[in-house]
Amino acid sequence: MAQKVLFINCTPKKSPEESNTRALCNDVAEVYEKEYGLRCDFIRVVDFNVLPGIESDMGKGDEWPEILERIKDADIIIVATPIWIGNISSLAQRVFERLEGTYSEGDPDNGQYPLYNKVGGAVITGTEDGAHFCAKTIQFCLMRFGCTIPPGADCYWVGPAGPGPSYIAAEGGRHLYTNRTKRTMVANTVFMAELLAKNRIPTNLLEVEEKAAAESTESIEIDWRSASKKESGKPKN
Amino acid sequence: MAQKVLFINCTPKKSPEESNTRALCNDVAEVYEKEYGLRCDFIRVVDFNVLPGIESDMGKGDEWPEILERIKDADIIIVATPIWIGNISSLAQRVFERLEGTYSEGDPDNGQYPLYNKVGGAVITGTEDGAHFCAKTIQFCLMRFGCTIPPGADCYWVGPAGPGPSYIAAEGGRHLYTNRTKRTMVANTVFMAELLAKNRIPTNLLEVEEKAAAESTESIEIDWRSASKKESGKPKN
Amino acid sequence: MAQKVLFINCTPKKSPEESNTRALCNDVAEVYEKEYGLRCDFIRVVDFNVLPGIESDMGKGDEWPEILERIKDADIIIVATPIWIGNISSLAQRVFERLEGTYSEGDPDNGQYPLYNKVGGAVITGTEDGAHFCAKTIQFCLMRFGCTIPPGADCYWVGPAGPGPSYIAAEGGRHLYTNRTKRTMVANTVFMAELLAKNRIPTNLLEVEEKAAAESTESIEIDWRSASKKESGKPKN
Amino acid sequence: MAQKVLFINCTPKKSPEESNTRALCNDVAEVYEKEYGLRCDFIRVVDFNVLPGIESDMGKGDEWPEILERIKDADIIIVATPIWIGNISSLAQRVFERLEGTYSEGDPDNGQYPLYNKVGGAVITGTEDGAHFCAKTIQFCLMRFGCTIPPGADCYWVGPAGPGPSYIAAEGGRHLYTNRTKRTMVANTVFMAELLAKNRIPTNLLEVEEKAAAESTESIEIDWRSASKKESGKPKN
Repeated sequence: MAQKVLFINCTPKKSPEESNTRALCNDVAEVYEKEYGLRCDFIRVVDFNVLPGIESDMGKGDEWPEILERIKDADIIIVATPIWIGNISSLAQRVFERLEGTYSEGDPDNGQYPLYNKVGGAVITGTEDGAHFCAKTIQFCLMRFGCTIPPGADCYWVGPAGPGPSYIAAEGGRHLYTNRTKRTMVANTVFMAELLAKNRIPTNLLEVEEKAAAESTESIEIDWRSASKKESGKPKN
Repeated sequence: MAQKVLFINCTPKKSPEESNTRALCNDVAEVYEKEYGLRCDFIRVVDFNVLPGIESDMGKGDEWPEILERIKDADIIIVATPIWIGNISSLAQRVFERLEGTYSEGDPDNGQYPLYNKVGGAVITGTEDGAHFCAKTIQFCLMRFGCTIPPGADCYWVGPAGPGPSYIAAEGGRHLYTNRTKRTMVANTVFMAELLAKNRIPTNLLEVEEKAAAESTESIEIDWRSASKKESGKPKN
Repeated sequence: MAQKVLFINCTPKKSPEESNTRALCNDVAEVYEKEYGLRCDFIRVVDFNVLPGIESDMGKGDEWPEILERIKDADIIIVATPIWIGNISSLAQRVFERLEGTYSEGDPDNGQYPLYNKVGGAVITGTEDGAHFCAKTIQFCLMRFGCTIPPGADCYWVGPAGPGPSYIAAEGGRHLYTNRTKRTMVANTVFMAELLAKNRIPTNLLEVEEKAAAESTESIEIDWRSASKKESGKPKN
Repeated sequence: MAQKVLFINCTPKKSPEESNTRALCNDVAEVYEKEYGLRCDFIRVVDFNVLPGIESDMGKGDEWPEILERIKDADIIIVATPIWIGNISSLAQRVFERLEGTYSEGDPDNGQYPLYNKVGGAVITGTEDGAHFCAKTIQFCLMRFGCTIPPGADCYWVGPAGPGPSYIAAEGGRHLYTNRTKRTMVANTVFMAELLAKNRIPTNLLEVEEKAAAESTESIEIDWRSASKKESGKPKN
């Protein structure tokens, strides 16, 4: 059965306003669909009422549970964000805060969080600068929640230093580097998703916890102030 | 055949001085060796004369080529760093600068860089704060050079805010969280390395480049200043 | 007249729920008030409906304009955030996105943005790790919008690696390092705010723009692909 | 007396090789010198043997002490770096590691570190992306060591996503945004340096330490594991 790709677009612009980040997602999706036969789904986070918090359901009016269901249903998760002052958007950060709730939804048999055995990637647009930091942040968060990150799992377009046209106006879709990273990301995430579909990660996190607890102390008493004095002037690491 | 793990320790302390980062690497290596039967190799970068630059051989006196050979020989690459002012050490950054040279060592048949099909992870120690940023930076760089990053591929110990004892003095080896992440990282990197040993990534980067070039323009002319004016006051992404 | 301090608390918890970030702000405020005689004001961003976007007023229902008025009224701006997965909270990022709107509110005489001549600082709490990155992000954003950042302008508490008690439960208020940074931040921001009250930054950004435009081209044509080929294998910077 | 500016160029290229980062420094220096009458000094870190470590003198062969003297002699410190994989160069990180040694060189009367009352700024060049992160890192480190960061204290040039020509080849010196930030940085750092020359920061860090110690405990005992369990499922901050 064909793998499913979910693009989580974290633009601040509500549908149907045109989003540069969505435009790049579309270009990526076209490769997933036409060249690899995968199905692509799109979520624009700002269209939902995603309440602040770190649990999977923050109560009345919270529309995160619907997004979370679609995340759980996907095989490849692409978090797509515009860049604001060098960081992922507030909506992308909100997504990761809410995914913290999945830590407590471990599988009863092996403790694996719901995003285990999925594959993660990053799509980023900005008028300028910040894509490296956004890509590493997206990939790191997804990896923490259980995703595998294959090589080349980021695709972005940014213009040169300072304000300027964004992806659509600058015809970023004709930019060689962006197209190269787009195709690499698609090829490698598809391969990895198929591999993990046939070979589930066998790690039992409940056993990990048990073994870790057995070699750890229950409490720690450290005299931080005197320790600090003793170590002053000495290399710390 | 048993997979090989390489720990690249980026401490500023030369051998045989005691290194907290090495101490945590030892604890990680013990699990790789005793519980999974893998062989572990250790490099302390500061013991080598690694010249500044971004090519694989920077000429007379450069000892990076020896390190690079051992990197190419490994299946799992763990970059281990102490934290300095919230960032990876200068020696860790040097390693990534030198790995830029591998971009021009693509396989003649499929263009894959030499780190493709390897698995990456991060080990971090600090008296305090900065591990998240270091982990995401290490993983992102390794991913860019070709490594796959499985879930939970970071293990660290840090104390609370401010100066204090480091891993050895604080008995970080008895810290539950560190031990949990240690065991998760080992289990998941071993699984992924075995998987990739049997299933090489098929992506042909030469074909990717060809297709990307075909859909891209050779040059771009943009009037950045007027574009900036036109867009002022409008959401950019 | 006494300087005014504004704490912008970016916790996801609505009032009156107890906030660890607020608890540390209270401890900082006590020094501002009792030892320096300044007045402190507190905003909990989550209590307001701050719409996504990058303009100063995003229309119907947007309560950012009220927050912005209080920001403009303050002399010292402290952005306070909990840490989530090593990053500032989504509410803190939202604050910075909305402050982008101030770029277009330059003074008609000298072009200075409304946050010019104010002083910035950062307060951070987390159960663990990430304070350095959050501090640098907060300070950088505030600096971009016009604030001056004096030395030691960050104060934080975090526990050791992994989950654990936060500021209140861990009695972070008795932590030496946190108290040292608290007092340094207060002393240096008060000094700088008084200095800037008597000595306004004279830079005329309209003249800067004019001179910059005179030495710049209107448009740039670069053949990125051939440039890339020419440069391959050579150090880039 | 005229203020002195020190540019610390962290390029990996030894003199007299052409450095893009130096080229942008030259353009910045021209404004400092011709329009404000300041004297500019340049250090290319790679020309010195700066040993790894975190003390001000790491012994035989270490040439950091000479750099440190010139840093102490300057009023405005500009750390200039090329970007590598989104981070400051290994030589820039080395500079910050070595500046850790200044923490133990506090003034006997007020405890202030040697960089107190100086002004900091950042110059960054890259073929692409990463300037925001580099700027915030440079500014944060300088602030930690005692520098004040006025608004707009970063100047950079980067091209669009992916490889391409760097500052010199791309004629970055004609880029409007870079020139705007260049002139803003110069104007604001000059103003702040003159202000601090006449108004030294009065904070007594020895008194700060004393007061902080008086309100802090000597040691902390926390049962991290049970604390973690108690808090599970609850918002942490």
